[in-house]
Amino acid sequence: LPASGEFRDLRIVLVDVRNPLNIGAAARAMSNFGFPYLRLVNPYDVAFQNARSAVGAAATLASAEVYTTVAQAVADCSLVVGTTAVGHRDLQHSLMRLEVGAPLLRASLKAGNCALLFGSEKYGLSNSDMSFCHWLMHIPTREEHYSMNLGQAVAVCLYELVRDPGAALQPESITLASSEEVERITDALFDALRASEYPKLNTSKSFHAAVRRVMRRLRLQPGDSEFLLGMLRQMIWKMKKNVAQKSKE
Amino acid sequence: LPASGEFRDLRIVLVDVRNPLNIGAAARAMSNFGFPYLRLVNPYDVAFQNARSAVGAAATLASAEVYTTVAQAVADCSLVVGTTAVGHRDLQHSLMRLEVGAPLLRASLKAGNCALLFGSEKYGLSNSDMSFCHWLMHIPTREEHYSMNLGQAVAVCLYELVRDPGAALQPESITLASSEEVERITDALFDALRASEYPKLNTSKSFHAAVRRVMRRLRLQPGDSEFLLGMLRQMIWKMKKNVAQKSKE
Repeated sequence: LPASGEFRDLRIVLVDVRNPLNIGAAARAMSNFGFPYLRLVNPYDVAFQNARSAVGAAATLASAEVYTTVAQAVADCSLVVGTTAVGHRDLQHSLMRLEVGAPLLRASLKAGNCALLFGSEKYGLSNSDMSFCHWLMHIPTREEHYSMNLGQAVAVCLYELVRDPGAALQPESITLASSEEVERITDALFDALRASEYPKLNTSKSFHAAVRRVMRRLRLQPGDSEFLLGMLRQMIWKMKKNVAQKSKE
Repeated sequence: LPASGEFRDLRIVLVDVRNPLNIGAAARAMSNFGFPYLRLVNPYDVAFQNARSAVGAAATLASAEVYTTVAQAVADCSLVVGTTAVGHRDLQHSLMRLEVGAPLLRASLKAGNCALLFGSEKYGLSNSDMSFCHWLMHIPTREEHYSMNLGQAVAVCLYELVRDPGAALQPESITLASSEEVERITDALFDALRASEYPKLNTSKSFHAAVRRVMRRLRLQPGDSEFLLGMLRQMIWKMKKNVAQKSKE
């Protein structure tokens, strides 16, 4: 089982979960995001067995530990965080939005094992389950439809934990064509327009600048300019050839 | 159908999706996060019909539009963003992590309709589907297991779109007891320790400060101090009563 990095210290604990598809979905999200340790409190035996078929979740499910009580499942954890959909219940705990709570939970992983609890599909975590939690998190859903599917809730929470705010500063893999390349294709476009006897070419003073602006707004990539240049050259060739033939006629 | 705010301008487009559970799960996440408009390109008829039973997704599914081609499904959108699990394929598009791309997509919603595309469970978006996209996003999953369940991928993408970075600055609902309340319970604890003839009370000079530090680390909330104060007072009463009885004997 791959268990590297800080997330090996987080136990994902599913309490009283009934649907095997949800256990499988939770395990798959754990595998996607790199959280190896799943704990199940009081799962239906059947549910747990069926879950073992979930796509890509075999390793996570094979190493899952089953407990009878929440107390046992979190015994080795120094921070226990519950999740709730915030329904009508009058919560006795500190409650934080996922965006707020996840960084705190992540920071706590450096100090020891932590647990993140999810309750049953129908009722969520009970008041008794929550009494083992230090605080609670909720995903910012709409008031009119706050209750999420369990597998989706697990995926969203784990995504927020692996989320890298620094990634927002460095967009990946957008390489733009150099000004020289953009200018080469702009020149080819002017050649093509001349060959087509485009009327505005010599009458409008601002036309050249307008074309140049458009070509830059296109955010051409290196390959693109070669590709378009080839098309334009072919059109220029054809237009000039037609003119040559016509003058022969 | 509730369709308020900027997210009414985003079309969630599922292309060639086969499993009704996934269509239902996508619709449920859309309802949870406030994205009203679902479009399906070439769904299996059976899949689409079965999806109508998904929990809380009825309104989203009832208003879903079905198209034959991607071109038709995105015709009224000025920005089309595809999602990919980044497998072995050699992508011809700009590819951004979800954290990077989502803010760009969100900003574009102010300028007009946008579309976010998800491909089939088995193959994702085809090269042909992608050719209708301006750029692509991927969820930062592990290289060893990059492919997510479709319903979970939709939930994660929509969560990132509704995510409020400002929320991280204002934790909700943690009210701590005032210093006066903490001091009152600390005094009660000292009374109880005196009544119990706790040995360190008068011998260790630093003991008082240590107790005071612990009481503050507990981050007691207003109700907590009353609750604990009652317990301590009962214990003090019992200890003093025992002493009184003993002195009578």
